Amino acid sequence: MPKNSAEVHRSLQQAALELFRERGYDQTTAAEIAARAGVTERTFFRHFADKRDILFDREASVQAALTEAIASAPADLAPMQVLLLAFHGMEAIYEDNRSFSEPRQAIIAVTPALRERELTKIASMIAVLASALEQRGVDAKLSTLAAQVGTAAFNYALMEWLDDTSSGLGAHLDRAFNQLFLLSSTYESGV
Amino acid sequence: MPKNSAEVHRSLQQAALELFRERGYDQTTAAEIAARAGVTERTFFRHFADKRDILFDREASVQAALTEAIASAPADLAPMQVLLLAFHGMEAIYEDNRSFSEPRQAIIAVTPALRERELTKIASMIAVLASALEQRGVDAKLSTLAAQVGTAAFNYALMEWLDDTSSGLGAHLDRAFNQLFLLSSTYESGV
Repeated sequence: MPKNSAEVHRSLQQAALELFRERGYDQTTAAEIAARAGVTERTFFRHFADKRDILFDREASVQAALTEAIASAPADLAPMQVLLLAFHGMEAIYEDNRSFSEPRQAIIAVTPALRERELTKIASMIAVLASALEQRGVDAKLSTLAAQVGTAAFNYALMEWLDDTSSGLGAHLDRAFNQLFLLSSTYESGV
Repeated sequence: MPKNSAEVHRSLQQAALELFRERGYDQTTAAEIAARAGVTERTFFRHFADKRDILFDREASVQAALTEAIASAPADLAPMQVLLLAFHGMEAIYEDNRSFSEPRQAIIAVTPALRERELTKIASMIAVLASALEQRGVDAKLSTLAAQVGTAAFNYALMEWLDDTSSGLGAHLDRAFNQLFLLSSTYESGV
């Protein structure tokens, strides 16, 4: 049965995650992923630049969506409100790809080259968020601080969401930002 | 006049920062740094593994000092209080090396390979802080969140301190943690 482009894309991702889990990331080739998905290698390379790209293919679209959400957020919102609003806008993308997120995270955790790539992705996301906040008139250093702190909360929410299927990402985002508030509000009393 | 080991170490750092500024990091060799400092190349390599090491030589000692400070902090302190206390313990190291910090930061900002190395250093510091908090019984994910947020505040304080010579690092640390509190406490009202 012929598949459309989005189905082929998903089949390749599914095949890649299976093979990465079975053999390890380094031991899997693009050709093997294509074969498992029942397509040619040429088709593989129409969808992905290389096997690593399979695990990071949403990076550019997520960054673009966050930038757009920050730019169009109401003018009276404070930096962390803007970030929380922008992260809430990503819920659908993440919920739709929930079944890939957990095996993806597991492969990254055991593959040093992918952990490096993940760090670069996080650094790039922080730079994008900081720049978008600065465009709203927030001081440059404060924008970087807010972007780092917001990204930390976002990643905390993602980890909690992967461990706890009983709540959606949105609830975990709210909890993460509340956790941030609780953490930050304790420093005064003792030091 | 013969110099002691600490003086030679400083001379090499000073010579390296001068040459990096004059020629750029990539265009400077270890031999040239040694020559500028008036020592042999062999002496250079007794002090530093390579030219990059000159800019990152305090990493291990800072991490060890932070780990020790977190382990020995009073048991009743909350995670962010523990981190602020540990960062305050680093003030003397940073104040003593103030004159190197600014040119160091400037070289890193314009050299992609060094920015990568700096990111790795920050990731490593976050891992060390998170692990030290976990040793105190803090939940693993919360330890990572606190370590990321605390490190963001620490780096914010360092940047402010480099720009503003009128206050010491200690005052900038307190302000950074207060800034964190102000940022985090705004999210509730609007979203």
